[in-house]
Amino acid sequence: MNCEMKKLYLIGMGPGKPEYLTVQAINALKQVNVFFMLEKEGRGKLELLEMRQTILTHYLGDTGYRVVMVNSPARAKTVDYQNDVQIWHDEKRALFAQLIANEMADGQIGAFLLWGDPSLYDQTVSLIADLAKHYTGKLEFEIIPGITSVQVLTAKHKIPLNRVGESITITTGRHVETCDPIEINNAVVMLDYNASFQRFTGQNMDIYWGGYLGCADEVLVSGAVDDVCDDLLRIKSEVRNEKGWLMDIYLLRRRIDGDH
Amino acid sequence: MNCEMKKLYLIGMGPGKPEYLTVQAINALKQVNVFFMLEKEGRGKLELLEMRQTILTHYLGDTGYRVVMVNSPARAKTVDYQNDVQIWHDEKRALFAQLIANEMADGQIGAFLLWGDPSLYDQTVSLIADLAKHYTGKLEFEIIPGITSVQVLTAKHKIPLNRVGESITITTGRHVETCDPIEINNAVVMLDYNASFQRFTGQNMDIYWGGYLGCADEVLVSGAVDDVCDDLLRIKSEVRNEKGWLMDIYLLRRRIDGDH
Repeated sequence: MNCEMKKLYLIGMGPGKPEYLTVQAINALKQVNVFFMLEKEGRGKLELLEMRQTILTHYLGDTGYRVVMVNSPARAKTVDYQNDVQIWHDEKRALFAQLIANEMADGQIGAFLLWGDPSLYDQTVSLIADLAKHYTGKLEFEIIPGITSVQVLTAKHKIPLNRVGESITITTGRHVETCDPIEINNAVVMLDYNASFQRFTGQNMDIYWGGYLGCADEVLVSGAVDDVCDDLLRIKSEVRNEKGWLMDIYLLRRRIDGDH
Repeated sequence: MNCEMKKLYLIGMGPGKPEYLTVQAINALKQVNVFFMLEKEGRGKLELLEMRQTILTHYLGDTGYRVVMVNSPARAKTVDYQNDVQIWHDEKRALFAQLIANEMADGQIGAFLLWGDPSLYDQTVSLIADLAKHYTGKLEFEIIPGITSVQVLTAKHKIPLNRVGESITITTGRHVETCDPIEINNAVVMLDYNASFQRFTGQNMDIYWGGYLGCADEVLVSGAVDDVCDDLLRIKSEVRNEKGWLMDIYLLRRRIDGDH
C-alpha cells in the first residue's frame, strides 16, 4: 500500500458476541487506526454501540486505536420510498466522505464494523464503492465477510436452510406484507416491522423465528404458523416492551408431503 | 453434559482457508475427541481432505484428537431423482449411526467439519437431527455457523447481495437449467455443472462468478453476461483441466434503470 492511499475495511462482525468474529476479521481489526461507529437514533442505540465497543475491547484492549461515533442519517418516510432512499444514501455518502477526509491521514486504515455480513441489506458497500471510484488511487477498500443472523437462525433451530434441491429466498417484511402468500415457499424474512407472518396462517406453513439472535437475550419460537402465531405476537410485544427495541428475523417454510 | 451422552458438533469451516473460521468454531474444535472426515470419491478428494487437515493442524497441532476418514456414499443417478436422494440419505444416515456407535465412547465429543455453513445445501443437519431424535438422551448436537462461499463471492466482487429493498434467491444449477429465465432477477446459483448462465444472454443481466473461492487458486470473472459468457466458458474449462476439478458459484443480476 502506498503511503498516500487510505484504506477502509468493511468488517462483518456477525450478530453480536465476540465469538462470532472470524480470524480474518480479528486480523483486520488489529491493523485499524480509526473505527467509525454509526448507529441510528433510537432506543437500542446505546446497547448496540456497547456491543461494538465490547468486541473492540475483547480483541484490542482499550488503546492503540481511535473510535469516532456519529449519528447515522435517518431515512425520511414520505410516500415516495425510492426518493427517500436516494436522499438518505446521498447524505450517508457525504458523511462517509467527510469522515474519510477529516478523520484519516494519508496511509491510514479506517474501518466500519457492520452487523452480520456487509453484503446483506446494508448499502455501506455500494456507497464506499462509489467513493472509491471517485478517489481512484487515493482510497481502496476491502470487505471481510461475517456470520449473518440467517446462519444463526438455522443453527439455533437446528434446521437446514433448504430442503433437498430447494431454493431459499431472503426477503423483506416490506415484500411479504403485500406479496401473494402463495409465492412464498421457503423464505427468510428480515426487517419485518409489521409481523407479516400473520398473513400465512391456514396455509400449511411452519415458522422458525428468532429475536436478538446471537445476543444474550436471544429468544426462539418455532412451529406451525397456525399454532404459534398468537404466542409469537405476544412474545414479540413482551420482549419489545422490556428492552425498548427488537431485532428479529424468521424463516417461513411451506410443508411438502412427507413433512411431519 | 452427562457422562453417557455423546455430543456432535457440526462445524461450518468456511470456504477453505483457516482464517475464515470463527472464534466459536475454533473453541468447538478444541473440545473434540474425534473428527469425521467424509469426502466423495473424485479428483478433488485429496486436496479437499488436505484443506481440512490444514485447518486442524493450524488450530490444534497434530496430536490430542483422532481423525476418521470415510468415503461419502455417492448418489445414484437414475431418472428418479427423489428416489436416488432417498436411498443416498438412508445410506449416509446409516453410516453416521455406525460412526457414532463404533468411533465414539459415551461422554465423548465428535465433529463433522462442513464446507461453508452447515445449513446451506448440506443435509448433514437433517440426518443427524433424525438420529438425535431416535437416540433421545444419548446423543445431542450443536451447529456452529460458518462463512459461506456466497459471502466470499460478494466480498471479493465488492458488491452487495441485494440492491435497495430487493430479495435474493439462492438456488441450484438444476433449477436455472430449466426455469423460465424471466423469473431470475437477483440469484446466487450453486452446484451448476452445466454452465446454465448461458441461458441468460440477451437479457440485460450481469454475472459475478467465482471459482475456488477463498482458496489459493481463486478466480473471479464479472461483467454483462453477453460480454463475458464466452470468456467464462473458456476459463472454466481451462481451470478445470488444470486442477482436475472445479467448485464455483455465481450471482446473476438483472439490470434495472439507472444501473451502469
